[in-house]
Amino acid sequence: MKHLLSVQDLGAEGVHEVMRLTDSFVEVSGRAIPRVPALRGKTVVSLFYEDSTRTRLSFETAAKRLSADTMTFSVSSSSVNKGESLRDTVETIEAMGIDAVVVRHKSSGVPWRIASWVNASVINAGDGWHQHPTQALLDCYTIRSRKGDLGGLRIAIVGDVMHSRVARSDVDAFAALGAEVLLVAPPTLLPASLEGWPVKITHSLDEVIGGLDVIYLLRIQRERMTEALLPSLREYRAVYGLTADRLRALRRDALVMHPGPMNRGVEIDAEAAEDERSVITAQVSNGVAVRMAVLYLLLGSGADLVAPPAGDQ
Amino acid sequence: MKHLLSVQDLGAEGVHEVMRLTDSFVEVSGRAIPRVPALRGKTVVSLFYEDSTRTRLSFETAAKRLSADTMTFSVSSSSVNKGESLRDTVETIEAMGIDAVVVRHKSSGVPWRIASWVNASVINAGDGWHQHPTQALLDCYTIRSRKGDLGGLRIAIVGDVMHSRVARSDVDAFAALGAEVLLVAPPTLLPASLEGWPVKITHSLDEVIGGLDVIYLLRIQRERMTEALLPSLREYRAVYGLTADRLRALRRDALVMHPGPMNRGVEIDAEAAEDERSVITAQVSNGVAVRMAVLYLLLGSGADLVAPPAGDQ
Amino acid sequence: MKHLLSVQDLGAEGVHEVMRLTDSFVEVSGRAIPRVPALRGKTVVSLFYEDSTRTRLSFETAAKRLSADTMTFSVSSSSVNKGESLRDTVETIEAMGIDAVVVRHKSSGVPWRIASWVNASVINAGDGWHQHPTQALLDCYTIRSRKGDLGGLRIAIVGDVMHSRVARSDVDAFAALGAEVLLVAPPTLLPASLEGWPVKITHSLDEVIGGLDVIYLLRIQRERMTEALLPSLREYRAVYGLTADRLRALRRDALVMHPGPMNRGVEIDAEAAEDERSVITAQVSNGVAVRMAVLYLLLGSGADLVAPPAGDQ
Repeated sequence: MKHLLSVQDLGAEGVHEVMRLTDSFVEVSGRAIPRVPALRGKTVVSLFYEDSTRTRLSFETAAKRLSADTMTFSVSSSSVNKGESLRDTVETIEAMGIDAVVVRHKSSGVPWRIASWVNASVINAGDGWHQHPTQALLDCYTIRSRKGDLGGLRIAIVGDVMHSRVARSDVDAFAALGAEVLLVAPPTLLPASLEGWPVKITHSLDEVIGGLDVIYLLRIQRERMTEALLPSLREYRAVYGLTADRLRALRRDALVMHPGPMNRGVEIDAEAAEDERSVITAQVSNGVAVRMAVLYLLLGSGADLVAPPAGDQ
Repeated sequence: MKHLLSVQDLGAEGVHEVMRLTDSFVEVSGRAIPRVPALRGKTVVSLFYEDSTRTRLSFETAAKRLSADTMTFSVSSSSVNKGESLRDTVETIEAMGIDAVVVRHKSSGVPWRIASWVNASVINAGDGWHQHPTQALLDCYTIRSRKGDLGGLRIAIVGDVMHSRVARSDVDAFAALGAEVLLVAPPTLLPASLEGWPVKITHSLDEVIGGLDVIYLLRIQRERMTEALLPSLREYRAVYGLTADRLRALRRDALVMHPGPMNRGVEIDAEAAEDERSVITAQVSNGVAVRMAVLYLLLGSGADLVAPPAGDQ
Repeated sequence: MKHLLSVQDLGAEGVHEVMRLTDSFVEVSGRAIPRVPALRGKTVVSLFYEDSTRTRLSFETAAKRLSADTMTFSVSSSSVNKGESLRDTVETIEAMGIDAVVVRHKSSGVPWRIASWVNASVINAGDGWHQHPTQALLDCYTIRSRKGDLGGLRIAIVGDVMHSRVARSDVDAFAALGAEVLLVAPPTLLPASLEGWPVKITHSLDEVIGGLDVIYLLRIQRERMTEALLPSLREYRAVYGLTADRLRALRRDALVMHPGPMNRGVEIDAEAAEDERSVITAQVSNGVAVRMAVLYLLLGSGADLVAPPAGDQ
């Protein structure tokens, strides 16, 4: 595997491989000195054309725990307007001797174009509404760590599916691992065509909530209202929010998930976010270990996987 | 000690402990390779909701000299407006496995709220007009290194006390160590109530300047004029500035201090900033060692305090 | 050598010394773990008053490969307006114990002023239209690595010479190494006086292109049109651009160079940028090794030049 661009690239076997490797890195992350020398001398650049401190910090933490060097190339719109093309930027970075580029861009497909230009490994950290594969991997890992296996689980993804790269990557990953995926959303927030999506659709959360193993709430962007896709946040919450009432309808062994950052009181009430069935914090923690696994798969030599650095024993 | 939120938390004994420990780190900072492995494997995040490159660099330098990893979470107002709550941000950072959060925020009390949410250590790097404890510690250390002891010293804090977290923390620390603290300011720049403050007040710098052991000039914000708290910078300088004339009135063994950045020609003339009695540069240098001491007290294991890293002898 | 402010400081012998040292660091950069301990414990700060992610990343990569610590002080115009003087900023940074300052500033001469204030080494990473010595060094190195020697080569620098610090530094360096330098530009984009410049001038690229060993295209800033210095980008390209037609007129062994970022379709066509005679990517790669050489010359102890870190053999 050279790049990680989409969940489809990995397939079920690839997802399983990342998850097995993640087990090792969860162990490393729990050590007093959570660091292994696996990627010593490698350089990982974060190339973020869209602001996302969370995802960037998660990747940089992962890279540092593997002893890689990290650099950040945050691109404000102004410097992009200065006339420097994406291709020049990427080729310049690569010419400096970089081993991996972690890309976030508002346009779908950009990571693929970058991968066609460079020899470095490319990791898609979110492209437009399209894909966000490491999010899907950490979501799978988080479910697997509580449920053992995703096969046969009933997972609802609730909310703004249309504009969500998280939803697209999660649908692919959950279905590949054998889960039954339900999309729960108002018609205005579903893609125009769902042909080929391995999902069932419903517009009523209340009809399905009692039978779910996992409820995955998507973030609601406030700008969807000005686009007339949503009547009001209050109405959205009334029909699709994980409120205290719905929390009671949820099974005792169900999991509550959210990719963050949450709009408390809109798609999820504070009570639900802090419920013992919520694994939202575990998603973040697992994110670092999953990204260590991905970086290791792309850049590692196969040697010294999880040995502590010399002198640390 | 888990957090450093205010000088009061430390008390006189705590301040003395930090100062003793700082002696060791001043020695480390003077080495050819100013680095010890004390915090290897620990991660320190700078969470700055208010711009302060100086304070951030000082903490990051301190963390690196202790072999900790550092990450920066600079929060522009725009991304805060995106709807991500402080609490989500902090919980997300902690979930990635961070050991300490260094917080700067324009609202008083924010570091306390963060400390109530997380298991990581929280260091207040300035909250509103409220507290800036590491500044007070480096000020104490700088005076102690020249005077041996603060007991009985007469220290004037001059200028915009009302809006100054530096003044509040310094008053607490200087008084705890036995100094006599004078506030010298126009009535418009003093807090409405000074009840309980262990200070004396005067509106005339000229009356007291000849008897001072330390004169501490606060930075004047130009916006205080538009708020009608100051007539003009020229008038302010005439009455409260450390001018060449006042420099002559200052005792030969007095110290001139300023938290930076200076407005030369307003609260302090260039001649005073560069006078041999000025310890302003020493404040900055000592700041790194003091912050090493604080990070070590909060995160260190007690072992290998100042030994150089393996292989460096 | 304490600072690197201009090519003149180095002289021909200094340029040769940097190039010889660069050979070693090109070798280091090609290793599986491209890192040597030469500057362990040293701290290099990037002080960028003008945005330039490329140059900053190149210096930071160079510093990291030498095991130095790096910090970035990016100065937005707003914080400069806050009233902090350049001198205070620089003195503050130095007081924290920094060994070298890499400065980019829009005003000519700023690096010299900084060098007069501090004990740290100062490297000019571009000051106004004035100098950009490491660019000249990497350009010399790139030519030397293809041609063996610059003596007697005919090098044309094409475009906006007036506003170009790259042109000024390159003219000095190329001439010092014995090349014949031609400036090719419309009269509006040449400096008012060229007295003392060791160059020949022409306004016609077509007259000279067939006899060149190196064609160096300068970046055209779009704002030159609003300043009425250029009629249109299309007309500029027609007369001064390296188009496919002119590419055919260029000798088979000539080199195509550009400091980046390119305006493809203005000063250089995409076909020319990707031609096999183009060494634009090599310029970027060599830039890291050249900057390692410069940092090593300024900060190195003379010992352990290119030995890998302990434990890496």
